[in-house]
Amino acid sequence: MIDVIATAQQALDVDMKGATTVVIDVLRATSSMTCAIHNGARSIVAVNTPEEAFDFKAKSSSRVILGGERHADKISGFDLDNSPLSYSADVVRGNDIVMTTTNGTLAIGACRRADRLLISSFLNADNVINQLQSVSGDIYIVCAGTEGRFTIEDGLCAGYIVSKLVGDKSDFAISMQQVYLSSSEDIRLVASKGEHFERLKRKGYAFDLDVCFSDIRNYEALECVDGVIKKL
Amino acid sequence: MIDVIATAQQALDVDMKGATTVVIDVLRATSSMTCAIHNGARSIVAVNTPEEAFDFKAKSSSRVILGGERHADKISGFDLDNSPLSYSADVVRGNDIVMTTTNGTLAIGACRRADRLLISSFLNADNVINQLQSVSGDIYIVCAGTEGRFTIEDGLCAGYIVSKLVGDKSDFAISMQQVYLSSSEDIRLVASKGEHFERLKRKGYAFDLDVCFSDIRNYEALECVDGVIKKL
Repeated sequence: MIDVIATAQQALDVDMKGATTVVIDVLRATSSMTCAIHNGARSIVAVNTPEEAFDFKAKSSSRVILGGERHADKISGFDLDNSPLSYSADVVRGNDIVMTTTNGTLAIGACRRADRLLISSFLNADNVINQLQSVSGDIYIVCAGTEGRFTIEDGLCAGYIVSKLVGDKSDFAISMQQVYLSSSEDIRLVASKGEHFERLKRKGYAFDLDVCFSDIRNYEALECVDGVIKKL
Repeated sequence: MIDVIATAQQALDVDMKGATTVVIDVLRATSSMTCAIHNGARSIVAVNTPEEAFDFKAKSSSRVILGGERHADKISGFDLDNSPLSYSADVVRGNDIVMTTTNGTLAIGACRRADRLLISSFLNADNVINQLQSVSGDIYIVCAGTEGRFTIEDGLCAGYIVSKLVGDKSDFAISMQQVYLSSSEDIRLVASKGEHFERLKRKGYAFDLDVCFSDIRNYEALECVDGVIKKL
Protein backbone atom coordinates (compact mmCIF):
# COMPACT_ATOMS: atom_id res chain seq x y z
CA MET A 1 0.00 0.00 0.00
CA ILE A 2 1.18 3.50 -0.87
CA ASP A 3 -0.13 5.94 1.71
CA VAL A 4 0.33 9.66 2.34
CA ILE A 5 0.32 10.99 5.91
CA ALA A 6 -0.91 14.58 6.27
CA THR A 7 1.30 15.83 9.14
CA ALA A 8 4.34 14.96 11.24
CA GLN A 9 2.02 14.58 14.22
CA GLN A 10 -0.13 12.00 12.45
CA ALA A 11 3.01 10.08 11.46
CA LEU A 12 3.57 9.34 15.15
CA ASP A 13 0.43 7.16 15.16
CA VAL A 14 1.40 5.06 12.15
CA ASP A 15 2.94 1.61 12.57
CA MET A 16 5.90 1.91 10.21
CA LYS A 17 7.54 -1.41 10.96
CA GLY A 18 8.78 -2.98 7.74
CA ALA A 19 7.86 0.09 5.71
CA THR A 20 9.78 2.58 3.62
CA THR A 21 9.00 6.19 4.54
CA VAL A 22 9.63 9.45 2.75
CA VAL A 23 9.62 12.74 4.64
CA ILE A 24 8.70 15.91 2.76
CA ASP A 25 8.95 19.47 4.05
CA VAL A 26 9.07 21.52 0.87
CA LEU A 27 9.06 24.85 2.77
CA ARG A 28 11.84 24.57 3.61
CA ALA A 29 13.66 21.90 5.65
CA THR A 30 13.93 19.07 3.14
CA SER A 31 14.56 21.50 0.25
CA SER A 32 17.45 22.99 2.25
CA MET A 33 18.79 19.52 3.12
CA THR A 34 18.65 18.55 -0.55
CA CYS A 35 20.58 21.69 -1.51
CA ALA A 36 23.12 21.20 1.27
CA ILE A 37 23.99 17.64 0.22
CA HIS A 38 23.93 18.56 -3.48
CA ASN A 39 26.37 21.37 -2.68
CA GLY A 40 28.79 19.00 -1.02
CA ALA A 41 27.85 18.79 2.66
CA ARG A 42 29.07 15.46 4.04
CA SER A 43 26.13 14.71 6.31
CA ILE A 44 23.14 16.21 8.10
CA VAL A 45 21.95 15.23 11.54
CA ALA A 46 18.36 16.29 12.28
CA VAL A 47 17.63 17.05 15.94
CA ASN A 48 14.52 18.28 17.69
CA THR A 49 15.83 21.22 19.71
CA PRO A 50 18.50 23.94 19.51
CA GLU A 51 19.92 22.57 22.78
CA GLU A 52 20.51 19.17 21.16
CA ALA A 53 22.22 20.93 18.26
CA PHE A 54 24.58 22.88 20.56
CA ASP A 55 25.27 19.71 22.51
CA PHE A 56 26.09 17.77 19.35
CA LYS A 57 28.49 20.50 18.23
CA ALA A 58 30.22 20.63 21.63
CA LYS A 59 30.84 16.88 21.55
CA SER A 60 32.02 16.74 17.95
CA SER A 61 35.74 16.61 17.09
CA SER A 62 35.29 17.95 13.55
CA ARG A 63 33.74 21.22 12.40
CA VAL A 64 29.93 21.25 12.62
CA ILE A 65 27.62 23.83 11.05
CA LEU A 66 24.40 24.57 12.92
CA GLY A 67 21.35 25.34 10.77
CA GLY A 68 17.63 25.68 11.24
CA GLU A 69 14.78 27.93 12.26
CA ARG A 70 12.19 28.84 14.80
CA HIS A 71 9.25 30.93 13.53
CA ALA A 72 10.93 30.75 10.10
CA ASP A 73 13.98 32.74 11.27
CA LYS A 74 17.57 31.84 12.24
CA ILE A 75 18.09 30.54 15.76
CA SER A 76 20.29 32.67 18.01
CA GLY A 77 23.84 31.28 18.05
CA PHE A 78 23.33 29.21 14.87
CA ASP A 79 25.44 29.55 11.71
CA LEU A 80 22.66 29.26 9.15
CA ASP A 81 18.92 29.74 8.91
CA ASN A 82 16.53 27.38 7.06
CA SER A 83 16.91 28.95 3.62
CA PRO A 84 18.14 26.63 0.84
CA LEU A 85 20.15 29.62 -0.42
CA SER A 86 22.22 29.58 2.77
CA TYR A 87 23.53 26.08 2.07
CA SER A 88 25.79 27.10 -0.82
CA ALA A 89 28.87 25.09 -1.81
CA ASP A 90 31.36 27.59 -0.35
CA VAL A 91 29.65 27.29 3.03
CA VAL A 92 28.80 23.60 3.30
CA ARG A 93 31.29 21.62 1.18
CA GLY A 94 32.90 18.83 3.18
CA ASN A 95 31.15 19.81 6.38
CA ASP A 96 28.75 18.07 8.72
CA ILE A 97 25.55 19.95 9.48
CA VAL A 98 23.19 19.71 12.41
CA MET A 99 19.69 21.00 11.72
CA THR A 100 16.60 21.66 13.78
CA THR A 101 13.39 23.02 12.31
CA THR A 102 9.83 23.28 13.60
CA ASN A 103 8.23 20.66 11.40
CA GLY A 104 10.73 18.90 9.12
CA THR A 105 13.03 17.49 11.77
CA LEU A 106 9.98 16.50 13.83
CA ALA A 107 8.68 14.47 10.89
CA ILE A 108 12.09 12.84 10.44
CA GLY A 109 12.14 11.91 14.12
CA ALA A 110 8.65 10.41 13.81
CA CYS A 111 9.74 8.22 10.89
CA ARG A 112 12.93 6.77 12.33
CA ARG A 113 10.97 3.66 13.34
CA ALA A 114 10.58 2.73 9.67
CA ASP A 115 12.89 0.19 8.05
CA ARG A 116 14.06 2.82 5.62
CA LEU A 117 13.75 6.61 5.63
CA LEU A 118 14.23 8.78 2.57
CA ILE A 119 14.16 12.58 2.48
CA SER A 120 12.46 14.34 -0.41
CA SER A 121 11.70 17.78 -1.76
CA PHE A 122 10.68 18.68 -5.29
CA LEU A 123 14.39 19.20 -6.05
CA ASN A 124 15.33 15.53 -5.66
CA ALA A 125 11.93 13.90 -6.15
CA ASP A 126 12.87 12.06 -9.35
CA ASN A 127 15.72 10.21 -7.67
CA VAL A 128 13.55 9.43 -4.65
CA ILE A 129 10.94 8.03 -7.04
CA ASN A 130 13.62 5.85 -8.67
CA GLN A 131 14.36 4.37 -5.26
CA LEU A 132 10.68 3.81 -4.44
CA GLN A 133 9.92 2.06 -7.72
CA SER A 134 11.78 -1.04 -6.55
CA VAL A 135 10.16 -1.13 -3.07
CA SER A 136 7.82 -4.07 -2.59
CA GLY A 137 6.51 -3.34 0.94
CA ASP A 138 4.40 -0.49 2.32
CA ILE A 139 5.39 3.08 1.47
CA TYR A 140 4.42 6.00 3.72
CA ILE A 141 4.97 9.47 2.30
CA VAL A 142 4.89 11.84 5.26
CA CYS A 143 4.03 15.50 4.73
CA ALA A 144 5.66 17.49 7.55
CA GLY A 145 2.96 20.18 7.52
CA THR A 146 3.19 23.17 9.82
CA GLU A 147 2.51 22.94 13.53
CA GLY A 148 0.12 20.03 13.15
CA ARG A 149 -1.68 21.39 10.12
CA PHE A 150 -1.49 19.94 6.61
CA THR A 151 0.19 22.22 4.05
CA ILE A 152 -0.61 22.03 0.37
CA GLU A 153 2.98 22.27 -0.91
CA ASP A 154 3.91 19.04 0.88
CA GLY A 155 0.74 17.43 -0.47
CA LEU A 156 1.67 18.49 -4.00
CA CYS A 157 5.14 16.95 -3.70
CA ALA A 158 3.65 13.77 -2.20
CA GLY A 159 1.13 13.70 -5.05
CA TYR A 160 3.93 14.06 -7.60
CA ILE A 161 5.72 11.05 -6.11
CA VAL A 162 2.50 8.99 -5.87
CA SER A 163 1.67 9.78 -9.51
CA LYS A 164 4.91 8.09 -10.61
CA LEU A 165 4.38 4.91 -8.56
CA VAL A 166 2.38 1.81 -9.42
CA GLY A 167 0.54 -0.14 -6.73
CA ASP A 168 -2.34 -0.02 -4.26
CA LYS A 169 -2.88 3.57 -3.18
CA SER A 170 -4.84 4.82 -0.17
CA ASP A 171 -7.69 7.29 -0.64
CA PHE A 172 -5.50 10.08 0.68
CA ALA A 173 -2.66 9.12 -1.68
CA ILE A 174 -5.09 9.13 -4.61
CA SER A 175 -6.39 12.54 -3.49
CA MET A 176 -2.91 14.04 -3.31
CA GLN A 177 -2.12 12.56 -6.72
CA GLN A 178 -5.27 14.24 -8.04
CA VAL A 179 -4.24 17.57 -6.48
CA TYR A 180 -0.83 17.29 -8.13
CA LEU A 181 -2.09 16.16 -11.53
CA SER A 182 -4.61 18.99 -11.69
CA SER A 183 -1.89 21.50 -10.70
CA SER A 184 1.06 20.11 -12.63
CA GLU A 185 1.16 22.97 -15.13
CA ASP A 186 1.71 25.50 -12.38
CA ILE A 187 2.51 23.89 -9.04
CA ARG A 188 3.79 27.15 -7.63
CA LEU A 189 0.49 28.90 -8.34
CA VAL A 190 -1.50 26.26 -6.44
CA ALA A 191 1.05 26.19 -3.60
CA SER A 192 0.87 29.98 -3.38
CA LYS A 193 -2.72 29.69 -2.14
CA GLY A 194 -1.37 27.95 0.95
CA GLU A 195 -0.83 29.39 4.39
CA HIS A 196 2.88 28.55 4.66
CA PHE A 197 3.84 29.94 1.24
CA GLU A 198 2.05 33.18 2.04
CA ARG A 199 3.77 33.52 5.42
CA LEU A 200 7.26 33.03 3.96
CA LYS A 201 6.54 35.52 1.19
CA ARG A 202 5.38 38.07 3.76
CA LYS A 203 8.57 37.49 5.76
CA GLY A 204 10.71 38.31 2.72
CA TYR A 205 11.74 34.78 1.65
CA ALA A 206 10.57 35.14 -1.97
CA PHE A 207 13.85 33.80 -3.41
CA ASP A 208 13.52 30.69 -1.23
CA LEU A 209 10.16 30.05 -2.85
CA ASP A 210 11.82 30.29 -6.28
CA VAL A 211 14.33 27.61 -5.25
CA CYS A 212 11.83 25.27 -3.57
CA PHE A 213 9.51 25.38 -6.61
CA SER A 214 12.17 25.44 -9.31
CA ASP A 215 11.92 22.88 -12.10
CA ILE A 216 14.92 20.94 -10.80
CA ARG A 217 13.92 17.37 -9.88
CA ASN A 218 17.20 15.48 -10.23
CA TYR A 219 19.27 16.42 -7.19
CA GLU A 220 20.52 13.46 -5.19
CA ALA A 221 18.10 11.32 -3.19
CA LEU A 222 18.83 11.43 0.55
CA GLU A 223 18.59 8.64 3.08
CA CYS A 224 18.59 8.87 6.85
CA VAL A 225 20.47 5.94 8.48
CA ASP A 226 20.89 5.83 12.25
CA GLY A 227 19.90 9.49 12.42
CA VAL A 228 22.44 10.66 9.83
CA ILE A 229 21.24 11.97 6.46
CA LYS A 230 23.52 11.38 3.49
CA LYS A 231 23.22 11.09 -0.26
CA LEU A 232 22.24 7.65 -1.48
CA MET B 1 -11.73 30.22 8.02
CA ILE B 2 -13.21 27.36 6.03
CA ASP B 3 -11.52 24.10 7.01
CA VAL B 4 -12.01 20.45 6.10
CA ILE B 5 -11.34 17.74 8.69
CA ALA B 6 -10.22 14.40 7.25
CA THR B 7 -11.84 11.97 9.71
CA ALA B 8 -14.35 11.73 12.55
CA GLN B 9 -11.45 10.92 14.88
CA GLN B 10 -9.60 14.10 13.97
CA ALA B 11 -12.77 16.12 14.54
CA LEU B 12 -12.55 15.21 18.23
CA ASP B 13 -9.38 17.33 18.51
CA VAL B 14 -10.85 20.46 16.93
CA ASP B 15 -12.12 23.34 19.07
CA MET B 16 -15.52 23.93 17.47
CA LYS B 17 -16.81 26.56 19.85
CA GLY B 18 -18.60 29.28 17.90
CA ALA B 19 -18.24 27.37 14.63
CA THR B 20 -20.65 25.90 12.13
CA THR B 21 -19.88 22.29 11.27
CA VAL B 22 -21.02 20.05 8.45
CA VAL B 23 -20.77 16.27 8.73
CA ILE B 24 -20.39 14.26 5.53
CA ASP B 25 -20.54 10.47 5.24
CA VAL B 26 -21.38 9.94 1.57
CA LEU B 27 -21.13 6.13 1.87
CA ARG B 28 -23.68 5.94 3.31
CA ALA B 29 -24.90 7.38 6.60
CA THR B 30 -25.58 10.98 5.61
CA SER B 31 -26.88 9.96 2.17
CA SER B 32 -29.37 7.64 3.90
CA MET B 33 -30.33 10.37 6.40
CA THR B 34 -30.91 12.81 3.55
CA CYS B 35 -33.12 10.27 1.77
CA ALA B 36 -35.02 9.44 4.95
CA ILE B 37 -35.93 13.05 5.70
CA HIS B 38 -36.66 13.77 2.03
CA ASN B 39 -39.02 10.80 2.04
CA GLY B 40 -40.95 12.14 5.01
CA ALA B 41 -39.27 10.83 8.15
CA ARG B 42 -40.04 13.22 11.03
CA SER B 43 -36.66 13.05 12.73
CA ILE B 44 -33.45 11.06 13.08
CA VAL B 45 -31.54 10.56 16.30
CA ALA B 46 -27.92 9.46 15.78
CA VAL B 47 -26.51 7.26 18.55
CA ASN B 48 -23.15 5.54 18.94
CA THR B 49 -24.17 1.99 19.78
CA PRO B 50 -26.94 -0.52 18.99
CA GLU B 51 -27.59 -0.71 22.77
CA GLU B 52 -28.35 3.03 22.88
CA ALA B 53 -30.67 2.58 19.91
CA PHE B 54 -32.63 -0.27 21.59
CA ASP B 55 -32.75 1.75 24.80
CA PHE B 56 -34.11 4.80 22.98
CA LYS B 57 -36.81 2.70 21.35
CA ALA B 58 -37.79 1.08 24.63
CA LYS B 59 -38.28 4.48 26.27
CA SER B 60 -40.15 6.07 23.39
CA SER B 61 -43.94 6.36 23.45
CA SER B 62 -44.29 6.69 19.67
CA ARG B 63 -43.16 4.28 16.95
CA VAL B 64 -39.41 4.32 16.35
CA ILE B 65 -37.58 2.74 13.42
CA LEU B 66 -34.08 1.42 14.10
CA GLY B 67 -31.57 1.76 11.26
CA GLY B 68 -27.84 1.43 10.74
CA GLU B 69 -24.94 -0.91 10.14
CA ARG B 70 -21.93 -2.69 11.48
CA HIS B 71 -19.40 -3.89 8.88
CA ALA B 72 -21.75 -2.36 6.25
CA ASP B 73 -24.58 -4.82 7.08
CA LYS B 74 -27.86 -4.57 9.05
CA ILE B 75 -27.61 -4.89 12.80
CA SER B 76 -29.39 -7.86 14.35
CA GLY B 77 -32.80 -6.76 15.69
CA PHE B 78 -32.85 -3.56 13.66
CA ASP B 79 -35.57 -2.63 11.15
CA LEU B 80 -33.35 -1.17 8.46
CA ASP B 81 -29.75 -1.32 7.26
CA ASN B 82 -27.70 1.69 6.14
CA SER B 83 -28.84 1.70 2.50
CA PRO B 84 -30.49 4.91 1.27
CA LEU B 85 -32.86 2.64 -0.68
CA SER B 86 -34.24 1.25 2.59
CA TYR B 87 -35.51 4.65 3.71
CA SER B 88 -38.34 4.85 1.18
CA ALA B 89 -41.46 6.95 1.77
CA ASP B 90 -43.71 3.97 2.51
CA VAL B 91 -41.36 2.89 5.29
CA VAL B 92 -40.31 6.15 6.90
CA ARG B 93 -43.07 8.73 6.35
CA GLY B 94 -44.12 10.36 9.63
CA ASN B 95 -41.81 8.20 11.70
CA ASP B 96 -38.91 8.88 14.00
CA ILE B 97 -35.70 7.00 13.23
CA VAL B 98 -32.78 6.08 15.45
CA MET B 99 -29.57 5.36 13.58
CA THR B 100 -26.15 4.04 14.49
CA THR B 101 -23.36 3.57 11.96
CA THR B 102 -19.62 2.95 12.26
CA ASN B 103 -18.39 6.32 11.09
CA GLY B 104 -21.20 8.77 10.33
CA THR B 105 -22.86 8.82 13.73
CA LEU B 106 -19.40 8.99 15.36
CA ALA B 107 -18.65 12.13 13.34
CA ILE B 108 -22.00 13.62 14.33
CA GLY B 109 -21.26 12.94 17.98
CA ALA B 110 -17.84 14.59 17.62
CA CYS B 111 -19.42 17.74 16.18
CA ARG B 112 -22.16 18.29 18.71
CA ARG B 113 -19.90 20.79 20.51
CA ALA B 114 -20.21 23.21 17.58
CA ASP B 115 -22.69 26.07 17.65
CA ARG B 116 -24.44 24.67 14.66
CA LEU B 117 -24.33 21.25 13.02
CA LEU B 118 -25.52 20.53 9.50
CA ILE B 119 -25.64 17.13 7.81
CA SER B 120 -24.65 16.83 4.17
CA SER B 121 -24.34 14.32 1.38
CA PHE B 122 -24.09 15.03 -2.33
CA LEU B 123 -27.89 14.71 -2.46
CA ASN B 124 -28.57 17.83 -0.38
CA ALA B 125 -25.27 19.66 -0.82
CA ASP B 126 -26.76 22.64 -2.69
CA ASN B 127 -29.12 23.48 0.15
CA VAL B 128 -26.35 23.01 2.72
CA ILE B 129 -24.21 25.40 0.65
CA ASN B 130 -27.08 27.93 0.66
CA GLN B 131 -27.03 27.82 4.46
CA LEU B 132 -23.25 28.15 4.68
CA GLN B 133 -23.09 31.14 2.35
CA SER B 134 -24.53 33.36 5.08
CA VAL B 135 -22.24 32.07 7.86
CA SER B 136 -19.70 34.64 9.04
CA GLY B 137 -17.74 32.55 11.58
CA ASP B 138 -15.54 29.48 11.16
CA ILE B 139 -16.83 26.56 9.12
CA TYR B 140 -15.56 23.01 9.67
CA ILE B 141 -16.55 20.44 7.08
CA VAL B 142 -15.98 17.06 8.68
CA CYS B 143 -15.42 13.99 6.52
CA ALA B 144 -16.52 10.93 8.49
CA GLY B 145 -13.99 8.62 6.79
CA THR B 146 -13.89 4.94 7.61
CA GLU B 147 -12.44 3.61 10.85
CA GLY B 148 -10.05 6.53 11.24
CA ARG B 149 -8.98 6.65 7.62
CA PHE B 150 -9.82 9.42 5.17
CA THR B 151 -12.09 8.38 2.30
CA ILE B 152 -12.04 10.12 -1.03
CA GLU B 153 -15.82 10.28 -1.54
CA ASP B 154 -16.23 12.41 1.58
CA GLY B 155 -13.33 14.59 0.42
CA LEU B 156 -15.01 15.06 -2.95
CA CYS B 157 -18.27 16.18 -1.33
CA ALA B 158 -16.37 18.50 1.03
CA GLY B 159 -14.48 19.89 -1.98
CA TYR B 160 -17.75 20.50 -3.80
CA ILE B 161 -19.06 22.51 -0.87
CA VAL B 162 -15.77 24.43 -0.44
CA SER B 163 -15.73 25.29 -4.14
CA LYS B 164 -19.05 27.13 -3.76
CA LEU B 165 -17.99 29.18 -0.72
CA VAL B 166 -16.05 32.44 -0.57
CA GLY B 167 -13.60 33.17 2.25
CA ASP B 168 -10.28 32.13 3.78
CA LYS B 169 -9.72 28.45 3.13
CA SER B 170 -7.23 26.14 4.85
CA ASP B 171 -4.64 24.24 2.81
CA PHE B 172 -6.65 21.05 3.26
CA ALA B 173 -9.87 22.79 2.16
CA ILE B 174 -8.08 24.12 -0.95
CA SER B 175 -6.74 20.62 -1.65
CA MET B 176 -10.18 19.03 -1.41
CA GLN B 177 -11.58 21.77 -3.65
CA GLN B 178 -8.84 20.94 -6.15
CA VAL B 179 -9.68 17.22 -5.97
CA TYR B 180 -13.35 18.01 -6.60
CA LEU B 181 -12.76 20.52 -9.40
CA SER B 182 -10.45 18.14 -11.24
CA SER B 183 -13.02 15.33 -10.87
CA SER B 184 -16.24 17.26 -11.38
CA GLU B 185 -17.00 15.72 -14.77
CA ASP B 186 -17.07 12.25 -13.30
CA ILE B 187 -17.12 12.27 -9.51
CA ARG B 188 -18.22 8.66 -9.38
CA LEU B 189 -15.22 7.53 -11.41
CA VAL B 190 -12.77 9.19 -9.03
CA ALA B 191 -14.68 7.96 -5.97
CA SER B 192 -14.63 4.43 -7.40
CA LYS B 193 -10.85 4.34 -6.92
CA GLY B 194 -11.46 4.56 -3.17
CA GLU B 195 -11.34 1.79 -0.63
CA HIS B 196 -14.88 2.26 0.72
CA PHE B 197 -16.58 2.40 -2.68
CA GLU B 198 -14.81 -0.80 -3.71
CA ARG B 199 -15.82 -2.59 -0.49
CA LEU B 200 -19.51 -1.69 -0.87
CA LYS B 201 -19.47 -2.74 -4.52
CA ARG B 202 -17.94 -6.07 -3.56
CA LYS B 203 -20.62 -6.55 -0.89
CA GLY B 204 -23.36 -6.10 -3.51
CA TYR B 205 -24.44 -2.52 -2.75
CA ALA B 206 -24.05 -1.26 -6.34
CA PHE B 207 -27.49 0.40 -6.36
CA ASP B 208 -26.58 2.32 -3.20
CA LEU B 209 -23.59 3.73 -5.07
CA ASP B 210 -25.93 4.87 -7.85
CA VAL B 211 -28.05 6.76 -5.31
CA CYS B 212 -25.16 8.28 -3.34
CA PHE B 213 -23.51 9.58 -6.53
CA SER B 214 -26.68 10.54 -8.41
CA ASP B 215 -26.87 14.04 -9.85
CA ILE B 216 -29.45 15.12 -7.26
CA ARG B 217 -28.13 18.00 -5.17
CA ASN B 218 -31.32 19.71 -4.01
CA TYR B 219 -32.77 17.49 -1.31
CA GLU B 220 -33.46 19.27 1.96
CA ALA B 221 -30.57 20.48 4.13
CA LEU B 222 -30.54 18.77 7.53
CA GLU B 223 -29.67 20.25 10.89
CA CYS B 224 -28.91 18.46 14.14
CA VAL B 225 -30.28 20.33 17.17
CA ASP B 226 -29.92 18.81 20.65
CA GLY B 227 -29.10 15.49 19.05
CA VAL B 228 -32.16 15.41 16.80
CA ILE B 229 -31.73 15.69 13.01
CA LYS B 230 -34.54 17.38 11.11
CA LYS B 231 -35.01 19.24 7.87
CA LEU B 232 -34.13 22.91 8.02
